[in-house]
Amino acid sequence: VSRRFHIKDEIRILGIDDSALTGEKILIVGAFFRGGIWLDGVLSSYITRDGMDGTGTIISMVKASKHYPQVRVIMLDGITYGGFNPIDIRLLHGSTGIPVIVLMRKYPDLEMIAKAVTNLPHEKERMDIFKRAGDIMEVCTADPLNPVYIQCCGINFRDAARIVRSSSTRSNIPEPLRVAHLIATGIILGESRGKA
Amino acid sequence: VSRRFHIKDEIRILGIDDSALTGEKILIVGAFFRGGIWLDGVLSSYITRDGMDGTGTIISMVKASKHYPQVRVIMLDGITYGGFNPIDIRLLHGSTGIPVIVLMRKYPDLEMIAKAVTNLPHEKERMDIFKRAGDIMEVCTADPLNPVYIQCCGINFRDAARIVRSSSTRSNIPEPLRVAHLIATGIILGESRGKA
Repeated sequence: VSRRFHIKDEIRILGIDDSALTGEKILIVGAFFRGGIWLDGVLSSYITRDGMDGTGTIISMVKASKHYPQVRVIMLDGITYGGFNPIDIRLLHGSTGIPVIVLMRKYPDLEMIAKAVTNLPHEKERMDIFKRAGDIMEVCTADPLNPVYIQCCGINFRDAARIVRSSSTRSNIPEPLRVAHLIATGIILGESRGKA
Repeated sequence: VSRRFHIKDEIRILGIDDSALTGEKILIVGAFFRGGIWLDGVLSSYITRDGMDGTGTIISMVKASKHYPQVRVIMLDGITYGGFNPIDIRLLHGSTGIPVIVLMRKYPDLEMIAKAVTNLPHEKERMDIFKRAGDIMEVCTADPLNPVYIQCCGINFRDAARIVRSSSTRSNIPEPLRVAHLIATGIILGESRGKA
């Protein structure tokens, strides 16, 4: 059950994104932000392309961080990382005690996901993780013509939407995710590109 | 001869830092900033520990970037990267056409540097690069008890000091260098630490 909680403008958010698919091990980057403005720390780790180790790796990365006690929300860029490595947001929330918000630029095409997953091992487990991520809600940020979509765990939709809006200071997606994306692509490709 | 130029609050600055010495090849990271606030791009490359390839690598990285035409100032964190790999700021300025500001937290101990360099090949060339970096000036930013020191090329001290001050929005060092440091250490060590 998610509880309503006080949202400060300077709320600490950890945004996590992955890099381009250039090998078997995929770099993931955590950008630890104060509000939508200040980058206060960078975390990194590696997950297996199309593997099943994403959830465990992110949990370990978060719990090992010196910023762990301060992180009030974890933001994910979709629930698949490094190809089709699925992140179990209920397990991530349960293991860390931190609310999780999943952000998507488009309404996810579950049929297409189900089709792609049939070619991979652990098909049922992957689909269960997708289904457990729960309902999807539209959120309007600075650009009303480009809404984003969220799923969440450990926080209600209304609070989650407020946090997404208040941290989208530079574009229509939250700054911690925008910056995690710039870092991950900049390190792996030599120069950042594209959108989170 | 440096010319005086108009300094906008949103001046584009590329701050470059290196990572911890963990191997033969050292990651360097460029953080492309708009003013002292927004990270708009990330560059990365590798230089040789204690090598002589730092200047050439940084020149190539800058000139290959899509942000190259926009960069108004390059900021370096000292003039040795990856151990004692010296950056020739006159060559960097001459090859890119971009003014260079070198920032140091402490007044450099040239005697100690000269001593360290005697154990390395290219001793005379390294010392020449240090000497060519020119005069050192103290600059006070937000914290008057912790001044920083700068050298510059292609820009006069007064303009350089203004840019250093206006971009030091979060601490006593410019944001592009603070963030480049967080990224470089976060990627190589798994979590960012220390100060740029």
